[in-house]
Amino acid sequence: MVRQKKPFAVPPLAKMTRSLALVASGRRSPDLILRAARVLCPYTEAILPNREIWILGGRIAAVKPQGSAPPRWGRREYDVRGGIVAPGLIDPHVHIESSMVGACAYAEAALRNGTTTIFCDSHEIANVLGRRGIEWMLEDARRSPLSIFLTVPSTVPATNDRMETSGGRIDRHDVARLFDRFPEAVALGEKMDFVAVAAGHPQTHAILGEALRRGRPVCGHIYGEEFVAAYAASGITDTHEAGEGKIALQMLQAGMWIFLRGGPPLTPWHSLPKAIEAVSRLGASPKRLCVCTDDRDPDDLLLFGLDWVVREAWRHGLSQPLGWSLGSLHPALRFGLDGEMGGLAPGRRADLVLLDDQGRVRNTWLGGELLVEEGESTPSLEKSLAARYRYPRSAYRTVRLPRRRLCPPRLPEGMKRFHLLGIEPPGILVRHRAVVASGHEILRRLREEDLCWLAVLERHGKTAEIAWGLLEGFGLLQGAVASSVGHDAHNLLVAGKRVEEMELAARTLESAQGGVCVVAGERILALVELPVAGLLSDRRIDEVAEAMRRLKAAWGEVGCRLPYMGFNLLSLSVIPEIRLTNKGLVLVPEMRLVPLWEESRAKGACRNRRGDQAVPKPTPSSASQRR
Amino acid sequence: MVRQKKPFAVPPLAKMTRSLALVASGRRSPDLILRAARVLCPYTEAILPNREIWILGGRIAAVKPQGSAPPRWGRREYDVRGGIVAPGLIDPHVHIESSMVGACAYAEAALRNGTTTIFCDSHEIANVLGRRGIEWMLEDARRSPLSIFLTVPSTVPATNDRMETSGGRIDRHDVARLFDRFPEAVALGEKMDFVAVAAGHPQTHAILGEALRRGRPVCGHIYGEEFVAAYAASGITDTHEAGEGKIALQMLQAGMWIFLRGGPPLTPWHSLPKAIEAVSRLGASPKRLCVCTDDRDPDDLLLFGLDWVVREAWRHGLSQPLGWSLGSLHPALRFGLDGEMGGLAPGRRADLVLLDDQGRVRNTWLGGELLVEEGESTPSLEKSLAARYRYPRSAYRTVRLPRRRLCPPRLPEGMKRFHLLGIEPPGILVRHRAVVASGHEILRRLREEDLCWLAVLERHGKTAEIAWGLLEGFGLLQGAVASSVGHDAHNLLVAGKRVEEMELAARTLESAQGGVCVVAGERILALVELPVAGLLSDRRIDEVAEAMRRLKAAWGEVGCRLPYMGFNLLSLSVIPEIRLTNKGLVLVPEMRLVPLWEESRAKGACRNRRGDQAVPKPTPSSASQRR
Repeated sequence: MVRQKKPFAVPPLAKMTRSLALVASGRRSPDLILRAARVLCPYTEAILPNREIWILGGRIAAVKPQGSAPPRWGRREYDVRGGIVAPGLIDPHVHIESSMVGACAYAEAALRNGTTTIFCDSHEIANVLGRRGIEWMLEDARRSPLSIFLTVPSTVPATNDRMETSGGRIDRHDVARLFDRFPEAVALGEKMDFVAVAAGHPQTHAILGEALRRGRPVCGHIYGEEFVAAYAASGITDTHEAGEGKIALQMLQAGMWIFLRGGPPLTPWHSLPKAIEAVSRLGASPKRLCVCTDDRDPDDLLLFGLDWVVREAWRHGLSQPLGWSLGSLHPALRFGLDGEMGGLAPGRRADLVLLDDQGRVRNTWLGGELLVEEGESTPSLEKSLAARYRYPRSAYRTVRLPRRRLCPPRLPEGMKRFHLLGIEPPGILVRHRAVVASGHEILRRLREEDLCWLAVLERHGKTAEIAWGLLEGFGLLQGAVASSVGHDAHNLLVAGKRVEEMELAARTLESAQGGVCVVAGERILALVELPVAGLLSDRRIDEVAEAMRRLKAAWGEVGCRLPYMGFNLLSLSVIPEIRLTNKGLVLVPEMRLVPLWEESRAKGACRNRRGDQAVPKPTPSSASQRR
Repeated sequence: MVRQKKPFAVPPLAKMTRSLALVASGRRSPDLILRAARVLCPYTEAILPNREIWILGGRIAAVKPQGSAPPRWGRREYDVRGGIVAPGLIDPHVHIESSMVGACAYAEAALRNGTTTIFCDSHEIANVLGRRGIEWMLEDARRSPLSIFLTVPSTVPATNDRMETSGGRIDRHDVARLFDRFPEAVALGEKMDFVAVAAGHPQTHAILGEALRRGRPVCGHIYGEEFVAAYAASGITDTHEAGEGKIALQMLQAGMWIFLRGGPPLTPWHSLPKAIEAVSRLGASPKRLCVCTDDRDPDDLLLFGLDWVVREAWRHGLSQPLGWSLGSLHPALRFGLDGEMGGLAPGRRADLVLLDDQGRVRNTWLGGELLVEEGESTPSLEKSLAARYRYPRSAYRTVRLPRRRLCPPRLPEGMKRFHLLGIEPPGILVRHRAVVASGHEILRRLREEDLCWLAVLERHGKTAEIAWGLLEGFGLLQGAVASSVGHDAHNLLVAGKRVEEMELAARTLESAQGGVCVVAGERILALVELPVAGLLSDRRIDEVAEAMRRLKAAWGEVGCRLPYMGFNLLSLSVIPEIRLTNKGLVLVPEMRLVPLWEESRAKGACRNRRGDQAVPKPTPSSASQRR
């Protein structure tokens, strides 16, 4: 295969210093001059009036006082008429897959949001397809009109084979190979198994070692102050999971960078307003803060990009240049790339954004090439997107469900202790509710109250397990919902009150080879097809966003209170307190399985994390049905 | 040769994450606990009360609230009784040679100053001995009780063979070899030939390219705002030569880190008070500032260490934690080593300093080992220093002077235009004074006024040149002074009014094979012997400092106004406005040679930098005497 050139590639600085110095000294003319700019400077945190920017070969040669260049000195000129020119945004933590598109399609939305670089952790596709999936996505990234770096997926599966079954897995050898083969692999991606890290599990630490001995930074994901020291001691130097000012402060004190995550305001992704209190209320320096998006539904990506997150940081008290710095210079510095990007300074890539006075993105230049103008894709960008990457055929055949029909467990007659998943807004944390009841009472509540079944179907054609749980507070009034994007192992999640509707939802996604759907009775109310690894569409972003908007409308119609993306986390066994995987119910902080119900006065009962319910030690799971 | 182990070495973090995580989780006991500390946190810029620090294998495992560890849990415990424990200081830019000792001896002084890591640029020894000299000094550094990184000398000689003759030279192949052979070579050292950089000289840019294509940062040295853009465009990302707030601000805006240089208050090294105005008066963020020492006489090193520079930053308005951060976290971050050092956080090296409330250093731990206690070397440190590195014999034979006696040029009879070196305190810049006078008048001024001869003797046994200049405002009343430390080519500098005294001074240093001396009549008033490369003593720091104190007393006695270290810069042809090398007088901004005198109305006169004197274009030098 002929290796395609990266669109809008910029030669390495090592090869350009001479020509840039000559332009900067006025001895050679630039390719492009942006005239009449106010320049947002993240280094000093100021806005510099009356500047012009000289660009050569996709890099900045100089930022000079307005009028320094003689008329028509640049081969091209562009008058920004007093607008603010800022460095392109850099998103330090993104899972592209959450936006249900490939890297090329993601790039289009990112550019419209003023984002010119992302650090992506493709651990979703890795959970389905292993290292192959990561490599395909890197190929996709190389064809995309965006600078995309990889933070090598570190925790695939998120826990281990006893807790869940993933389609792919990444071991230390895969990590080493990715680092050694792909120069864009600049860091280890979020190490999520914080219990295993703190307990010193050898395999987990071997993966950390592969990054650290290559001098690569390690990204984190952590809940609970009791784990902070062990996490930091293991070489993990960032986190995007700081939900409160106090824990954010502790993590900063432990030497971690904090990525303030912003997202749609009513979702749990929007932890920025609380986390930023580490600075605004508790007085920490903001110099180790970044902003990030982490995950975005495709429709939300167009509304709540990283530019929106920066504006949220402004709204919470940061100055315009400091807030923008959290999304440009600081992420570049965190990954040691501040000589290459993150500021509007000589030698750096000419990744630029033109803002209006409200900080909304009007234009975006990537490597000196204008790709978005007044919010619209330019012909250059359209041409690049038309030639986007196609995933190989085997990526389109990944949903292999158990053959048998769904059949929930027969509930017991006497009083038992049931372990329920309790939904509480905003919904990242799921409460562990232990309820003493008879099977009869549970069935009544399934009919009459806000309780429904949740099933997880192993979908990689490996174990054919179906696990059952009970979901309290999900809000579903009728019908069923299903998703093949069940973080992180991406087994199939189905929720419903009636098994027939659940069956229809599951088989609909099997036919589509992945996606998310809402059904009611015998009708499919909405379906977003995600045929690539059961995670991604192969369409462009606007089309997928529109399908997602229709799906969300249907999602609301059947009563679901938990947003779609929160639903996908119900099987993510690294977020407290309780999750359902294909293996059954997982109590996350103790990292152990419990059955759906057990004797109400079981021996060896121990206290759960909230301490208000006695939860027995594990017995062989009755919540998991085997073929 | 058996490779000796680095004293107080710490295993790489990649090999320690498991054991550190176990200690941090309380599952394993630490080697050492520091109890009852206030912890200076450079990440948040705060002082945290009531902490204890758990240390294992030379690294920090956890910083916990006071009382977290049960009594006698650590194998050793140390009660700091409420003192402030701060991260060890990191000096981002040092020339060890300026302190006239080897790396092992330098380490002793650094540790007493709370400095545990330095980034040294050994371009002085390289100018004498080439790459061999750098490699010997690296060997010295490896035996030293200090973390020493190399910023690979980039500009040896400082200019080129037409401007000066050095003993050694470093080309792009040497740079490549140093990067590839020595893991401690983490950056390219200060690129000093800013005129050549801006003009795009291919050899200069080839050296920059060797660093940039390996992803290594490039350090700078720059005067004059007209060069800032070209310098930054060439990939240079720091400078320690910001003498004013305004130029410091411009350099920050161009994406450079600023190393605020502090030094003895009345010397030109103390540029911190002016440069810090970029923050204090002009409002820039301090996040891209560091502090550094650059050069220190051995006696000054003990009084004006990096801790003193930090206290100066406090005195100029920075908070205690922020000021300390400029000497710990910020330099670590600038070189991408903030996961390894620079903060008191888990996983980092246990390089620690105990401060009193005035911020003076009481104790220093290197990799968890107590090496300085209450200002005194501990037995561990004494033992390490006793086994310090010895340079090979060929390093002791480097001063090869021209054989003939000194003989100043015969001055002309008519009125000529003389180019004088005008000393103005504080003395880094030397003014170019063009004076129309007769030879007779100059001789009278030599006898009666503050004018003396300056001679530069090529001392590497190569060209045997002796160049002559006239020094105005040096203050010398009697006798002569000489130094084999004539930056950067390290030819021999001799100043005096009478040629016999100058001859005695030169021959005294030839006998000692290097050093600095003051003579009067036939007496040697003071001599510091520097037999290693003509730059370094092989003694310990206190002994060399004492010799230097005696020398400085004699230096004052004969009337010199320019400090010794400033004297050494009189041949450094990269600092404006005029210098004398073995080739003659160099006008630095134009990078051209001029004769000592020329016709007062020469054709082709051009204006000098100050614009107040017509200075003719170069003619064959009459100021350089050849064998």
